[in-house]
Amino acid sequence: MRNEEPRSFCPINMAVEVLGDTWTLLILRDMMFAGKRHFRDLLQCEERIASNILADRLRLLTLEKVITKSEDPTHKQKAIYSLTEKGIQLLPVLVQIRIWGAHHMGKIDAVSPAVKAFNRKLERGGPELWAQMMAELRATHLGR
Amino acid sequence: MRNEEPRSFCPINMAVEVLGDTWTLLILRDMMFAGKRHFRDLLQCEERIASNILADRLRLLTLEKVITKSEDPTHKQKAIYSLTEKGIQLLPVLVQIRIWGAHHMGKIDAVSPAVKAFNRKLERGGPELWAQMMAELRATHLGR
Repeated sequence: MRNEEPRSFCPINMAVEVLGDTWTLLILRDMMFAGKRHFRDLLQCEERIASNILADRLRLLTLEKVITKSEDPTHKQKAIYSLTEKGIQLLPVLVQIRIWGAHHMGKIDAVSPAVKAFNRKLERGGPELWAQMMAELRATHLGR
Repeated sequence: MRNEEPRSFCPINMAVEVLGDTWTLLILRDMMFAGKRHFRDLLQCEERIASNILADRLRLLTLEKVITKSEDPTHKQKAIYSLTEKGIQLLPVLVQIRIWGAHHMGKIDAVSPAVKAFNRKLERGGPELWAQMMAELRATHLGR
């Protein structure tokens, strides 16, 4: 938790104080949908995140217990980031943002057929598919 | 549309370029859940939005066709803001943010019983309830 009091106790306000930053949502996107868990991989995003911004947002997400940072068991020098249960439960938020973006932000011709197919799958699958995706994230990130 | 190219054509990125700002999401919250449609009412939010920020975000949301601005038929001097169909379809995003915030952002004792009851209703209702809420928004904002 950060030290400051939230601007209000409205649940939407408290959530957007953590999430309401474009880079934070893109980092979570890459951890959830692209399986990225190392700093160097997260830095390789199409939107060209600056390394100081990435470091800052990872630090804030760790403070808020959305992710944890630990030593990668396979490369002792490297840190690995994991989603917590709190972080995994953001999947439905990201999915709804993705469905909305795919429908309404135009320029959809620039989106690859694979991405389009995945968007359709997400939309048709609904809450059952999201639960299955969250179970997969729990297996990978929480080992359960 | 803004003139700049998006940072990438990923649907999540294009969406968060519009939504990834804490004030924008709070303005949409007040239009969707509190029925606010006038500048003065939107200014009266618990989080104390500054009037220049409110004006700027309303302008950007209008440019992105998430809302429209028109003359209020009941008070000719006043402007009234309406959600577009694109804006109304953000309801599931806001609902998921709200559910997550209510579960995970703590300090839940500070939330009023009415808000808690509404959160439970949103969570149990699922996509059917959201469709009903979107139909109500269409009736109010789009007159259909």
